[in-house]
Amino acid sequence: MQNIKASIITIGDELLVGQVIDTNSAWMSQQLNKAGVWVHRRIAVGDVWDDIWNTLDDEKEAADVILITGGLGPTADDITKPLLCKYFGGKMVMHEETLAHITYLFEHVFKRPMPLLERNRKQAEVPDVCTVLRNGVGTAPGMLFEKENKIFVSMPGVPYEMKHIMQVHVLPLLKNRFDLAHIEHRTLMTMGIGESFLAERIKDFEEALPSNIKLAYLPNFGMVRLRLTARGTREEVQQELDELFEALKARLTDVIVIDEDISFEVLLGRLLKETNKTVSTAESCTGGYIAHLITSIPGSSVYFKGSVVSYDNSVKKNVLNVTEETLTTVGAVSEDTVKQMIAGVLNVMRTDYAVAVSGIMGPDGGTEEKPVGTVWVAVGNNKSTVTRKFHFRFDREKNIQITAMNALYLLCTFIRENS
Amino acid sequence: MQNIKASIITIGDELLVGQVIDTNSAWMSQQLNKAGVWVHRRIAVGDVWDDIWNTLDDEKEAADVILITGGLGPTADDITKPLLCKYFGGKMVMHEETLAHITYLFEHVFKRPMPLLERNRKQAEVPDVCTVLRNGVGTAPGMLFEKENKIFVSMPGVPYEMKHIMQVHVLPLLKNRFDLAHIEHRTLMTMGIGESFLAERIKDFEEALPSNIKLAYLPNFGMVRLRLTARGTREEVQQELDELFEALKARLTDVIVIDEDISFEVLLGRLLKETNKTVSTAESCTGGYIAHLITSIPGSSVYFKGSVVSYDNSVKKNVLNVTEETLTTVGAVSEDTVKQMIAGVLNVMRTDYAVAVSGIMGPDGGTEEKPVGTVWVAVGNNKSTVTRKFHFRFDREKNIQITAMNALYLLCTFIRENS
Repeated sequence: MQNIKASIITIGDELLVGQVIDTNSAWMSQQLNKAGVWVHRRIAVGDVWDDIWNTLDDEKEAADVILITGGLGPTADDITKPLLCKYFGGKMVMHEETLAHITYLFEHVFKRPMPLLERNRKQAEVPDVCTVLRNGVGTAPGMLFEKENKIFVSMPGVPYEMKHIMQVHVLPLLKNRFDLAHIEHRTLMTMGIGESFLAERIKDFEEALPSNIKLAYLPNFGMVRLRLTARGTREEVQQELDELFEALKARLTDVIVIDEDISFEVLLGRLLKETNKTVSTAESCTGGYIAHLITSIPGSSVYFKGSVVSYDNSVKKNVLNVTEETLTTVGAVSEDTVKQMIAGVLNVMRTDYAVAVSGIMGPDGGTEEKPVGTVWVAVGNNKSTVTRKFHFRFDREKNIQITAMNALYLLCTFIRENS
Repeated sequence: MQNIKASIITIGDELLVGQVIDTNSAWMSQQLNKAGVWVHRRIAVGDVWDDIWNTLDDEKEAADVILITGGLGPTADDITKPLLCKYFGGKMVMHEETLAHITYLFEHVFKRPMPLLERNRKQAEVPDVCTVLRNGVGTAPGMLFEKENKIFVSMPGVPYEMKHIMQVHVLPLLKNRFDLAHIEHRTLMTMGIGESFLAERIKDFEEALPSNIKLAYLPNFGMVRLRLTARGTREEVQQELDELFEALKARLTDVIVIDEDISFEVLLGRLLKETNKTVSTAESCTGGYIAHLITSIPGSSVYFKGSVVSYDNSVKKNVLNVTEETLTTVGAVSEDTVKQMIAGVLNVMRTDYAVAVSGIMGPDGGTEEKPVGTVWVAVGNNKSTVTRKFHFRFDREKNIQITAMNALYLLCTFIRENS
């Protein structure tokens, strides 16, 4: 078994001016981990010759596999390819197969009326010291280099194209080339207990962990995820990890809300499919975000019928039948309102379950009585409704996210208890 | 004027197993850029002593300012603080002011019934060689170290707390300490032209750029953003950049859709507020994502009334009055359906404008006639409706995003042309 270390280098000024959030690295890390490759460092550098060169030098020392994304476009700010050519001591040659592929893409997929430009043709040029990794879904090919027993792969930064090259070429190549370790994770999510109190409760468990198993705490949104990570051969890892995970779960039964690394929207989908039931949402302050999370799951059309986003009070009244009296006396952010929203949306959407939220997300709109972060959530069916009030203390974006997460959690709990 | 380089080091295994997407670095980069500090590299390392230590060594050589986030929690996997203490040759001491602050937070903000644990008290310990940067919104204090004329700052990884410490302490300190360069960007967004054809059209413009101004191409979602970045003194930078930006715009009038670095939802809000009009959405395949984007903007309640997410055909019929005949003959993904959805949602929500979408986001649900990625979008008011058909070729997540972006773009265009 070989312990193979990888470094990920992402290239592009857009990463260093903060114009783009790097989602590629997280995805690549996940895939490498699944394959048994430990990601050692991730580095983002600009489109600057010396910075890229020095980073290649550094990572060559530290890792066995160096995966590079970005800087392969047809424009002048993209300097990765000539740099790699020089770094590995090659010269640029036309790769006819890639040129044919690019020509095909322009004619039949992009359907561009114009002929290939010189700069498009140039995308088919590669250093003669690399192995071309065909990019089935884009114009910039992947390139594989080997130097001093280290593997370097350069891929485009477009997520869709990078993923294609990783799946078709890079991951199979790594599995073939190395006797990779098996890396496996077990994750559970807790709610209602702070990170430090959680750590205190499982202190002896943590101290007794064998050296090949690590425990990590990931606090977010008022919840803490606990992750056990093991590395070894598949057989020894799985049994050991399963036993430890069961032991951990047994000690935290009162605070565990999910014992897998899945989101509440995935859990919701499972619960509804198992029982053949449907759901709808009535959203004020979350503005459709709960519906978006639910429908981000493939196949959600089986159990999700729809949503009324009642941002304005007129919609709460006219579509969801919230009474004028409620809105003028206790207001839109109240227990009465979310209860009536549940009744209203169940009636409009004809679903088995519904969730409703109303609150103040900020930065403005708060009052002394109902400060920013005040949220009412209701979940229910035709027989009963459960409500809960929250006080979040974050910015608008995070208040929306944490409201949606708690609403989905309450909904899952309600379904479990009422089906 | 000093050209100050920064490196950002993020610490945490969760970044290297891909369990968490790093949004901190992008935000920090933006803020540093605004302040005139060039971010040179961003590095993510695990909770591994040697890896952190070596990264500190590397970045100390390459940058003037090293900003570190993460690894400051109260649990055993968080090793940043003892490491920094050793790295800078200090010893741990109790920082009484921080302890008082933590005690206050637990009693009055978190409202924890339990007394402070030893591990909570430990969060108030800091190396005696650092300057404490008070964390007003959390328990882990920021720490400032100086060594060999380089500035190191350690902050918690919780985005909310990191942002607080950056804004209150770090950015003012950098502005005070250095005579910072002025870095400024101008961004425009184009649509309907590929990156290479765009580059060809402005080739001579790009080649004639002065050395302190860089042009970058950011293709995404079938659009290409062009960014001009200048660095110098405020006076020379602004005038030069404005002139070049105007020249660039003049050459691309037919393909520019926004001449600022703003999103379509921000543009939409401006257009509606200027004209005092309102909008609603009727969403099938985007499942509430367009409403979510619109309501992510503070103050959107002034112009956004609500949405009907009609995922199921019964909702299209019962709430939006799409006819049974349309749904059975041409189907839910059709021009007729989105036109009727517009009429329906305008009637239900009583807004001036509306946008409607219906399509197949995948991975399943496609047919030969209507493959995955087929989308109909309509935008309109009570007088007229404009429709458009798209064929996207991405995965579910990206199909949803690109549909929403195009829908918002069409909506903005419709409002501009009909107000």
